[in-house]
Amino acid sequence: MRVRDIGEFGLIERIATLVPRPPEADRGVVLGIGDDTAALDVGGPYLLLATIDIQVEGRHFRRERIDPLRLGRRTAAINLSDIGAMGGAPRWALVSLALPPDLAVAWVEDLYRGLAAELGRFGAAVVGGNLSSSEQIVVDLALLGEVERGRLLRRDGARPGDVILVTGTLGASAAGRFALEAGLDPADPQVAPLVEAHLTPTPRVAEGQAVAATGRATAAIDLSDGLSSDLGHVCDASNVGALVDAARLPIGAETRAVAARLGLDPVALALAGGEDYELLITAPSAAAPELAAAVRTATGVSLTTIGEVTPAAAGRWLVRDGARLPLAATGWDHFRR
Amino acid sequence: MRVRDIGEFGLIERIATLVPRPPEADRGVVLGIGDDTAALDVGGPYLLLATIDIQVEGRHFRRERIDPLRLGRRTAAINLSDIGAMGGAPRWALVSLALPPDLAVAWVEDLYRGLAAELGRFGAAVVGGNLSSSEQIVVDLALLGEVERGRLLRRDGARPGDVILVTGTLGASAAGRFALEAGLDPADPQVAPLVEAHLTPTPRVAEGQAVAATGRATAAIDLSDGLSSDLGHVCDASNVGALVDAARLPIGAETRAVAARLGLDPVALALAGGEDYELLITAPSAAAPELAAAVRTATGVSLTTIGEVTPAAAGRWLVRDGARLPLAATGWDHFRR
Repeated sequence: MRVRDIGEFGLIERIATLVPRPPEADRGVVLGIGDDTAALDVGGPYLLLATIDIQVEGRHFRRERIDPLRLGRRTAAINLSDIGAMGGAPRWALVSLALPPDLAVAWVEDLYRGLAAELGRFGAAVVGGNLSSSEQIVVDLALLGEVERGRLLRRDGARPGDVILVTGTLGASAAGRFALEAGLDPADPQVAPLVEAHLTPTPRVAEGQAVAATGRATAAIDLSDGLSSDLGHVCDASNVGALVDAARLPIGAETRAVAARLGLDPVALALAGGEDYELLITAPSAAAPELAAAVRTATGVSLTTIGEVTPAAAGRWLVRDGARLPLAATGWDHFRR
Repeated sequence: MRVRDIGEFGLIERIATLVPRPPEADRGVVLGIGDDTAALDVGGPYLLLATIDIQVEGRHFRRERIDPLRLGRRTAAINLSDIGAMGGAPRWALVSLALPPDLAVAWVEDLYRGLAAELGRFGAAVVGGNLSSSEQIVVDLALLGEVERGRLLRRDGARPGDVILVTGTLGASAAGRFALEAGLDPADPQVAPLVEAHLTPTPRVAEGQAVAATGRATAAIDLSDGLSSDLGHVCDASNVGALVDAARLPIGAETRAVAARLGLDPVALALAGGEDYELLITAPSAAAPELAAAVRTATGVSLTTIGEVTPAAAGRWLVRDGARLPLAATGWDHFRR
């Protein structure tokens, strides 16, 4: 059996159950494998959050399509987004770089400038790292953050009757990626913001902190693989179902326009395009206005109700034009495409 | 200018000084870039230690020469060694794996078993990770540990007059690597322990903790690049010189025997072979017996005095057969070989 036969999530499942862990190794582990970050009890007033994300040339990026400054920003943003999804504050980063020896030093410096600038925007800094040579460029970032005890946003607390909310808009990153692949002019005013959303997503760190501070959210996750997959992770962890209303998905005018030009379904981009790095939050429906107000006040970003949490037995559905369609996990799997 | 033109340490120097960091990002950073691990103040009774190390196929290992179980153990050991060099206790690990899709699932599972087993031996566990596809196998491990405040072993405290001590023996890993490359029988009783030292080094975690508990060491580092390079890092950080006595280097009988068979200089293996993952410690000479006793009692491992710390202006020298030779940093550089 090969890795491609079981895919990314199949492999994660096998790995997570593979090795019996000595009980002393679990000391301090509040959350281990299976959320946006691990949460660790280090004895102080905050829980420590820890996440890692690898970017491999030819898989996650192509050198001819993204400049190193943006690649650095993007790599930082992907990790910052995970800290945001836990309601935490990013603090310290470790960077592993594997680089072809003939790479220009200026390229590496720009990559690092982008990384440090994006981390710095959110109060975090690089405190260590590691360099190696390689054939493909690999950038692996481990990011640590902190969250007040009792403020941690997890995946596993969604309850039937909760509403499902998302920050910002969906599908823009995928629309930008398809626009680049189709050769649309990246300076076109409809295309430019989508390419920007794709190449340098904005992590919802302050939004996650604002949500956590209300104490009203029951679950949260960042939308990296795509709404349908990531909502599926919340349903798995919380043992609930979900009903999403296609008409309520916040899809921007540019995304709709570019989707129309490329013959793509904007709802499919929003559900399965991935890489939006918005936050999905569940909360009792009575708390939705307070949450929306908290996020808007802190950051100016809107929070949109897109559906509701149902009992697990009710399944996972998308309502569109009066029809109920299965909400399949159609997001990105690294080994299957 | 290309990466290979300035090499690994040149690139690290440029990166470390590249970006002005916002002061708030330095909150809690006790030690940043430039020691075996970062040390972070998380508000509790312990300092948090954080390190990351990447293993790239074709650079750090070859699939035909190391089985995945050993590769996992080795990857864990390299990171555990860094925590040991700070006097810390390993706790939590994050793992990024980039894998060719046609890799056997059993290979990945064995890699993970090796990682988890070696981490578990030292009380640490994998709490998160990330999977990607790639052409080359890449295993990147970030490891967190803890150390009591005031017990941190750093690189920058060596003082003229201190003695230089090392744990265990030197050169065995390099001798094992050369033996494999020369096609010597790995089952040969002289060769087998060297190959074992090369493929699955033993991190000196308990040794580092025993040293730290005495409160007598002035500096420590793990010997990953090679004694001459790593002692050079201590000299740079502490602004001191060093005088090493070749006759006192602890070189095992098998290393000497295999070096003789291969026409290699065992002293060169000890100085520049690298990957021994022993600890180098400096301490006032009056403290050496106490340190040696503490390490021997805790672990059975010997501590050998190999030289002394001198003023920076005195330089860095090796005394061999009555001659003084410059102690050049001839260890591993990823981009230069």
